[in-house]
Amino acid sequence: MSRQLRIAIIGHRFMGRAHSNGWLQAAKFFDLPAQPVLALACGRDADATRAFADNWGWEETTGDWREAVARDDIDIVDIASPTHLHRDMAVAAAAAGKHLFCEKPFALDAAQAAEMLAAAKAAGVVGYLNHNYRRCPAVRLAKQLVDSGELGRIYHWRGSYQQDWLADPETPMRWQLKQEFAGGGPHIDLGSHGIDLARYLVGEVAAVTCTQANFVKERPLPGGGGGEVTVDDASIMSLEFESGALGSLEVTRYATGRKNRNAFEIYGSEGAVCFDLERMNELQFFSKCDPATQQGFRTVLATDPGHDYAGRWWPPGHIIGYEHPFAHAAADFIDAVCDGPPITPDFADGLACMQVLDAANRSAREGRRVEVG
Amino acid sequence: MSRQLRIAIIGHRFMGRAHSNGWLQAAKFFDLPAQPVLALACGRDADATRAFADNWGWEETTGDWREAVARDDIDIVDIASPTHLHRDMAVAAAAAGKHLFCEKPFALDAAQAAEMLAAAKAAGVVGYLNHNYRRCPAVRLAKQLVDSGELGRIYHWRGSYQQDWLADPETPMRWQLKQEFAGGGPHIDLGSHGIDLARYLVGEVAAVTCTQANFVKERPLPGGGGGEVTVDDASIMSLEFESGALGSLEVTRYATGRKNRNAFEIYGSEGAVCFDLERMNELQFFSKCDPATQQGFRTVLATDPGHDYAGRWWPPGHIIGYEHPFAHAAADFIDAVCDGPPITPDFADGLACMQVLDAANRSAREGRRVEVG
Amino acid sequence: MSRQLRIAIIGHRFMGRAHSNGWLQAAKFFDLPAQPVLALACGRDADATRAFADNWGWEETTGDWREAVARDDIDIVDIASPTHLHRDMAVAAAAAGKHLFCEKPFALDAAQAAEMLAAAKAAGVVGYLNHNYRRCPAVRLAKQLVDSGELGRIYHWRGSYQQDWLADPETPMRWQLKQEFAGGGPHIDLGSHGIDLARYLVGEVAAVTCTQANFVKERPLPGGGGGEVTVDDASIMSLEFESGALGSLEVTRYATGRKNRNAFEIYGSEGAVCFDLERMNELQFFSKCDPATQQGFRTVLATDPGHDYAGRWWPPGHIIGYEHPFAHAAADFIDAVCDGPPITPDFADGLACMQVLDAANRSAREGRRVEVG
Amino acid sequence: MSRQLRIAIIGHRFMGRAHSNGWLQAAKFFDLPAQPVLALACGRDADATRAFADNWGWEETTGDWREAVARDDIDIVDIASPTHLHRDMAVAAAAAGKHLFCEKPFALDAAQAAEMLAAAKAAGVVGYLNHNYRRCPAVRLAKQLVDSGELGRIYHWRGSYQQDWLADPETPMRWQLKQEFAGGGPHIDLGSHGIDLARYLVGEVAAVTCTQANFVKERPLPGGGGGEVTVDDASIMSLEFESGALGSLEVTRYATGRKNRNAFEIYGSEGAVCFDLERMNELQFFSKCDPATQQGFRTVLATDPGHDYAGRWWPPGHIIGYEHPFAHAAADFIDAVCDGPPITPDFADGLACMQVLDAANRSAREGRRVEVG
Repeated sequence: MSRQLRIAIIGHRFMGRAHSNGWLQAAKFFDLPAQPVLALACGRDADATRAFADNWGWEETTGDWREAVARDDIDIVDIASPTHLHRDMAVAAAAAGKHLFCEKPFALDAAQAAEMLAAAKAAGVVGYLNHNYRRCPAVRLAKQLVDSGELGRIYHWRGSYQQDWLADPETPMRWQLKQEFAGGGPHIDLGSHGIDLARYLVGEVAAVTCTQANFVKERPLPGGGGGEVTVDDASIMSLEFESGALGSLEVTRYATGRKNRNAFEIYGSEGAVCFDLERMNELQFFSKCDPATQQGFRTVLATDPGHDYAGRWWPPGHIIGYEHPFAHAAADFIDAVCDGPPITPDFADGLACMQVLDAANRSAREGRRVEVG
Repeated sequence: MSRQLRIAIIGHRFMGRAHSNGWLQAAKFFDLPAQPVLALACGRDADATRAFADNWGWEETTGDWREAVARDDIDIVDIASPTHLHRDMAVAAAAAGKHLFCEKPFALDAAQAAEMLAAAKAAGVVGYLNHNYRRCPAVRLAKQLVDSGELGRIYHWRGSYQQDWLADPETPMRWQLKQEFAGGGPHIDLGSHGIDLARYLVGEVAAVTCTQANFVKERPLPGGGGGEVTVDDASIMSLEFESGALGSLEVTRYATGRKNRNAFEIYGSEGAVCFDLERMNELQFFSKCDPATQQGFRTVLATDPGHDYAGRWWPPGHIIGYEHPFAHAAADFIDAVCDGPPITPDFADGLACMQVLDAANRSAREGRRVEVG
Repeated sequence: MSRQLRIAIIGHRFMGRAHSNGWLQAAKFFDLPAQPVLALACGRDADATRAFADNWGWEETTGDWREAVARDDIDIVDIASPTHLHRDMAVAAAAAGKHLFCEKPFALDAAQAAEMLAAAKAAGVVGYLNHNYRRCPAVRLAKQLVDSGELGRIYHWRGSYQQDWLADPETPMRWQLKQEFAGGGPHIDLGSHGIDLARYLVGEVAAVTCTQANFVKERPLPGGGGGEVTVDDASIMSLEFESGALGSLEVTRYATGRKNRNAFEIYGSEGAVCFDLERMNELQFFSKCDPATQQGFRTVLATDPGHDYAGRWWPPGHIIGYEHPFAHAAADFIDAVCDGPPITPDFADGLACMQVLDAANRSAREGRRVEVG
Repeated sequence: MSRQLRIAIIGHRFMGRAHSNGWLQAAKFFDLPAQPVLALACGRDADATRAFADNWGWEETTGDWREAVARDDIDIVDIASPTHLHRDMAVAAAAAGKHLFCEKPFALDAAQAAEMLAAAKAAGVVGYLNHNYRRCPAVRLAKQLVDSGELGRIYHWRGSYQQDWLADPETPMRWQLKQEFAGGGPHIDLGSHGIDLARYLVGEVAAVTCTQANFVKERPLPGGGGGEVTVDDASIMSLEFESGALGSLEVTRYATGRKNRNAFEIYGSEGAVCFDLERMNELQFFSKCDPATQQGFRTVLATDPGHDYAGRWWPPGHIIGYEHPFAHAAADFIDAVCDGPPITPDFADGLACMQVLDAANRSAREGRRVEVG
């Protein structure tokens, strides 16, 4: 592994940590064609960025992301910043010929997404969009069951992503509740995960109908007074897939008791699968191939060597956690950069996902069904 | 218990059996103010009706429902026939002064429902609509938690009623797949249960947006050839409640592996509950009153003496089955006829429920949000 | 169904109700070769016996069980009385040529059980011991999976029967806590169920090792003061089956939160099953025949027409409750009396079960492993 | 964090990886009073040891553990070797004044354990025994509920540790099946975990009764022919705690379908908890403080900031995996070495645990109850 890939990361909070850990763990648990080097950490708060770099082993820090993405000694730009910055960073980094590891949500809207895709294409770089849940072993098993035909013709996708951190009206205002920074509420933050999984597992969405709610219109500001919430609080979509399958997706930050429940059910003519991120090592699988009196949803613990990625970690029955799919993504990304198989979801997926979400927003505003694209 | 209430039942199939059992078990497990007498069974197939009557102890049989509902020696008419006959039967029986125990779905549409309600009102009779799931002890517990404020302000209703008996495209045609007999597919058959529970637990629906699908357009006829399916196969609704709560409801007969999964989740600012009919003795309850590190969904087994109806049956931990809520309804109905507390859902609920379903049908047809009523 | 079988029941409390309901429901939901007639109810409290008879339709009552079991117009004696009376009743009824439907626990000890078996054999009557849980459809499915070899060689039985009604030390004294009336605590009351299921599903027990506990030695008497508890409060057994399988069984009335959890796990070389009475319609089944990455415990909802007894009740997904296996037993018993297939568990099973429990009691007393029989 | 603690690890397989990862992750996710330095990796296979060291960043390698534990530049010896080597390594390392991080099972028997404890005591070093499951956040929550009295008087411990990797009789022989290397089968390998948890959560064991089985006596050797299995295949213990509580523990490698199910149930007069390692982020908790009709086992997802260790990782609802408790142990160990709170389980716990397991082995051999110690 003499080849090295030098990474610049932008962002040092939750996603900065998760990405840093992903790069490091990928190097330890996977056989990589190149060594990821944590070269440069970029953040506006110099002290925090320094502490972050020290903790994770980033060699240098900088406060200027434009300089960072342009440096000659950088191969990969890891965008772990708030959503409203993604477009400029991705476009600049692509222009500088850097491979792109971009956190979700991809962009504020489909127009930005299209710019990002165009930039990556023009530069011929790898553009990866980090919808990390595609790389849970249990989700990969679902994908295999769909693709192999074991579920038969797909009739239904039923997705939800439920959190509860806004259920208390006194929870204070933060940047995620402002349209200009976040691009939307759970519709985009959680909905992008849901649409990505729906597209990954069932296919393209032809039309969407959406209803949104805003339960709490003003929230306390840290310094006193109230700030207006300018994003949705919850969003319910019905999805008409090109295949004829019917889907639903419900996302919210007001589902008391659900901390991080990214769940889906897929029903086909021959079988069904269900997934819940809070039990992310498990896939529920129902098969009509089983004898009639023995049919039932089986709980597959996706920790066997035969499950994607699982053999890299621990013996069967020893579960992995939230951060492991980041390492899977890091490993696959490095493979892709080193001329291995292309990695998805890519920037084209990012555009397609944003187009569905944009159409859904339009549907909610106008109270009517909207065709995608 | 010297007073007797003489019942005429119309219908002798699935619901005929479930109702007969309900009347008989109510008399054995409840202290009733009057004795239900299984007086008259009415059906078009004389032999089958006779066998049904013999099995359950109905004193007489007849093939003429109009005569049945008019007889002087009948106090209660139990309508357990296909949906398209409900209106005429209910109107005639009400006109004859009979109390009405009517199976769901209430009617083919809201117009019929309005006629039925008017007839019952004019006659001053008890009109009960048998949405039996309201009387599961676990559902009653959910109702108490909502009404007591223990869930706080309700944000979300997430309902589904999933079956799978049509997932195989070769399953033959039957009357439930014809609009003129059934009034619709799962939208009305299962959706009426879902809307009834939503209204019971969360309140009135102000607007609805609906998407429907028809996956299999033709099904084999028993005698050969194919028959056209004229009802929906699946329906997804988003519900805007008058209270500001946001709801969803998904009904289908194509959810492979789900036999009879009538499920709901309710999320409020202070707690949440979840129910699944396939585990109908259980209610999942989450309370923010629990200490922070001890919060979680608890599985309440609703078999304790303090749970509604439960003390009538067996000791704690000894579960009841599908048919028991019919006995609960029979007992409450007899109470209501004997000047006890009014019983719900009543015919006004039936109209309200049909109005939501009608509005949703319109929404699906026109591809737009529709206000109810 | 012109033939009639006239029943005398002894006991009118919990089991009197459950048996009465069983006879009546069997007649309505099964095609029986003879009609069970609720002829005679027998109890010491005349008023309570009268009320019981009125409620359930028993034609006559009596306070004298010896007269009852001797009457010429009685075909079946249903013993639903406390354990300490079973032996005398069964022996007398057998001597009078009556078929015997006997509630569990079978007897106070193996010596009584042997007398009962001898009496039934000598009289040539049907002797049924009501271990009702054998007739849950899910338990029958477990039996089929074992017998068909789908579980392979059985290694492990892991059983438990947990209740919690004594977890509070202030719960008052009652007859079940006195050795002379009950023959023991949960060791016999719940343990007899566990041993019956273990023998049914895995086979004969060759040796047993047992540890028992008595957590609360004195309990309040209704009239004041305290009464000594003379039975065990909990019992843990390890079972060495003749087949070489290893078993465990744990029974208690002190498992806070467990209302009626009669659970078992069976592990074989090819698969495994798990059952829990609190979810009695479900069987968990794991099969090594599934592809490696698709293996998992599947939840089979035993409500399909192919499941034993299930087709008699409701459509798939409509669950049954605690009392239904009593109806299954009543139906099978009537078949057996009418020269249908023999019914088990029979009195020989009752003796075998008591021999294991007696050996376990000896093991607990003497602190050593004891061979059975 | 200028202070450094230099570690020598012995062993480079499964536990070598898990420990290496634990040290590294502790340094990244915890605020440590000293920096762990991966100084020296020791193993008999030079190439494998070199590759292991390269992967994890161990500075040097050696093939001689005696030299390793004696080096002046080493502060901590991490024993991750097979059981039969633990005693000599620990005694030598303690004599050299090294702090000891020792993998379980502690030793081949209590006699070895006593030597190890004496050596650590004499040297005044920190001796930690890595029963890692004590440091699952959910297990810590169980501990808090016991210690706070929220479960009341403890009546029952019901433990099991079930795996299935030997359920197939054709699985080949390996060193874990030889008494001289492993000290026993699942009795010691899994049983040591179970006894450690039982002692941690319920207290000391006064007496034990044990039954063991050996299902497959010979297994194929890699080179052909068969090798004799000289350890137990399964072990069932009943535990009499000093407190009067009654316990059971069942361990096996033949529980088909259970990959790594380390589970326990604790029942007290006021509440109960249940844990299953395959869902290691969850604790089931039942409280009698809940209103009567609202009681049930609640599933607490132990990922909130208030749960021990959880706040170090990710936001609520983002689960951790098998390896995280190793990092918790590494962090606590470093604290202890730096004069922070003492760490348990320590070598005294190791001795106590082995005494119970030895007594149980004697019980199984002699077919009688054995008092511990």
